[in-house]
Amino acid sequence: MTTPTTFAPIIPVSDRLGDTEEYYFSTKLREIARLRGQGKDILNLGIGSPDLPPAPEVLRALTRSAERPDSHGYQPYTGRPELRRAFAGWYDRYFGVSLDPEQELLPLMGSKEGIMHVSMAFINPGDEVLVPDPGYPTYRSATELAGGTVRSYSLNEASGWLPDLNRLESEGLDRVKIMWVNYPHMPTGAMATPDFFRELVQFARRNRILLVNDNPYAFILTDTVQSLLSVPGAREVALELSSLSKAQNMAGWRVGALAGAAAYLQTVLRFKSNMDSGMFLPVQEAAVVALGLGDEWYRQLNAVYRSRREVAFRIMDQLGCTYSREQVGLFVWARCPPDTDGYGICDRALYDKDVFLTPGGIFGGAGKPYVRISLCSTEEQLQEALYRLGAGAQEQQKSRSL
Amino acid sequence: MTTPTTFAPIIPVSDRLGDTEEYYFSTKLREIARLRGQGKDILNLGIGSPDLPPAPEVLRALTRSAERPDSHGYQPYTGRPELRRAFAGWYDRYFGVSLDPEQELLPLMGSKEGIMHVSMAFINPGDEVLVPDPGYPTYRSATELAGGTVRSYSLNEASGWLPDLNRLESEGLDRVKIMWVNYPHMPTGAMATPDFFRELVQFARRNRILLVNDNPYAFILTDTVQSLLSVPGAREVALELSSLSKAQNMAGWRVGALAGAAAYLQTVLRFKSNMDSGMFLPVQEAAVVALGLGDEWYRQLNAVYRSRREVAFRIMDQLGCTYSREQVGLFVWARCPPDTDGYGICDRALYDKDVFLTPGGIFGGAGKPYVRISLCSTEEQLQEALYRLGAGAQEQQKSRSL
Repeated sequence: MTTPTTFAPIIPVSDRLGDTEEYYFSTKLREIARLRGQGKDILNLGIGSPDLPPAPEVLRALTRSAERPDSHGYQPYTGRPELRRAFAGWYDRYFGVSLDPEQELLPLMGSKEGIMHVSMAFINPGDEVLVPDPGYPTYRSATELAGGTVRSYSLNEASGWLPDLNRLESEGLDRVKIMWVNYPHMPTGAMATPDFFRELVQFARRNRILLVNDNPYAFILTDTVQSLLSVPGAREVALELSSLSKAQNMAGWRVGALAGAAAYLQTVLRFKSNMDSGMFLPVQEAAVVALGLGDEWYRQLNAVYRSRREVAFRIMDQLGCTYSREQVGLFVWARCPPDTDGYGICDRALYDKDVFLTPGGIFGGAGKPYVRISLCSTEEQLQEALYRLGAGAQEQQKSRSL
Repeated sequence: MTTPTTFAPIIPVSDRLGDTEEYYFSTKLREIARLRGQGKDILNLGIGSPDLPPAPEVLRALTRSAERPDSHGYQPYTGRPELRRAFAGWYDRYFGVSLDPEQELLPLMGSKEGIMHVSMAFINPGDEVLVPDPGYPTYRSATELAGGTVRSYSLNEASGWLPDLNRLESEGLDRVKIMWVNYPHMPTGAMATPDFFRELVQFARRNRILLVNDNPYAFILTDTVQSLLSVPGAREVALELSSLSKAQNMAGWRVGALAGAAAYLQTVLRFKSNMDSGMFLPVQEAAVVALGLGDEWYRQLNAVYRSRREVAFRIMDQLGCTYSREQVGLFVWARCPPDTDGYGICDRALYDKDVFLTPGGIFGGAGKPYVRISLCSTEEQLQEALYRLGAGAQEQQKSRSL
């Protein structure tokens, strides 16, 4: 017998939750589940959750480790030494950045939790945090949950989706503690230029701001693998989040890392170690194998995404959207035709065509005229979406011509 | 080339971290690693991390799931429906509590993270939180990190380690929002009486306090499996945390759940969904199997712990400590002889005998005269600890008699 909730909660929610909604995709996935429950065959082109499996040797490492009787206990809060070494080796090989695996790498249960840990470790109520608009919504919510004040910095197509640092400086930065950057940038697919990264580090030093570059898209559809930590002088003012979610097809596994100077990482660990425990050892041992994958892995992966992206571009053409063919990362980002915006296009796609796309507006006001397609569906599914959306357009044309 | 950290961090740590130390075991495990690095063979009788593996069918479920190509993406923030149903079935079967799997169960990456989620969801700066002394240190640190004020409630042997609710009421409870309880109680091994649980629920209703019972030790060395949610009226004022860490030997896997009324769980989800993602699907599918284990699993497990406990009792005898033979859970808790305390005994054990025990003082001031031994070592290891500590005592007696 289930007791229905017919009572008022005995205590109110905390103020920090005041403006924080449940994460957009958390509610949206429930809605998709509901529509599917009604028999609708929804094509989900929304979330950047790779559909391809990890490398077979990664799975073998998981299984081999899980079968050992001593793999099931609590793990160190700082991760296993071999995992920290694997992250250091990967940083050295691909990013040209040398990190001390004992001091300068903190494995995480995914980089998303790192955003909250960093915010809780450094932000006091009233502190300002620079957050990109458009940008990943978690920078904003983590800032608010830590009691900080979000200061959006607007990005636009004309300036290559790079912030105007001079303008930020002219507006005064005295109360700013942290600046979130995310290059390759989600949702726009923009890359940082080396010049911009150098200016950014100087900007942070001048204004005493901690930079955090969220870097999960480093390898996707780009040959230029970049780390903010490779910039001279960055170590003093910058941290970087990495993730195995995207380029290693391990989104569900929850493995990431925070890289940077020991002084910062020790502070973050003070929060994190009071909140969770180390990751499941078999997952860590599998992650070590994933971090050791060679160039061929990334080449194959990008070949798949390149073909998919062509179909996604055609979907955008079909929708009348415009976009840059230079964009990188796991999504295609495009500007809607002038008579609508991302919400309009996405609602029609979902409710009329059973295709879930992401409205650019969930990434901030500057994203409103845009729409995003994830490349984490098969080419066939993307073709099916193209067909459905095209069929719609034809019907619409027909009904208009009637 | 590694850049040493020779600079001051560009921004200070947040005030919330002010009083929060790195979690005790996080630092202590590093020290043990250091001692082992020096060639010392440290016997760790400290942490309650089960050394036995999960059931073989649990491991098979993990492997089977991991081999499917569609097991690697992000998972729902509320966990898979089958995992919520498995938790509901387990609550029904063992605790006699009916919960709606859609609304009243929220799977967690271990119950430890639930302590932080609940604190962040309901505590404002200045709110008071009742925390047991002695008790699990995370209740205190999560309260502080959420900006709350810890109000310790003292437990003692004479009252069966149950709080004096009348006394708390007489001291005024206007600013109290949450009361953490934890029965079976860690570190003392005390059980709640059914009368106490009933009084506790009335107390919470009268004083508008949200109770949270942290219940990871429900099955260990007890035949009376208790849930606070089974008390009439509890649903309106109480939540409960469960864990697969202890009784399913899955500490490293990070699987737990928060149970209670939908209104509370939705609030917690607003925090949690902005902080992390759903658990790795193979871990969830394995957890479903673990929750379906029958009585025989718990019987076998407790037979092992019962034998180990006898040796732990003898270690306590050897140390001159006194204890209750009625205690339950994964530890043996004992009072030190009057000439020393837990810190004294533990330092001598670690530095002179290479045996790591836990000083009761890390669980609060009321725990200072006590020492704790974990049952998560083999009988042989416990025998070895008994031998080492005994050999010490004999040498000491010898040197005294010289």
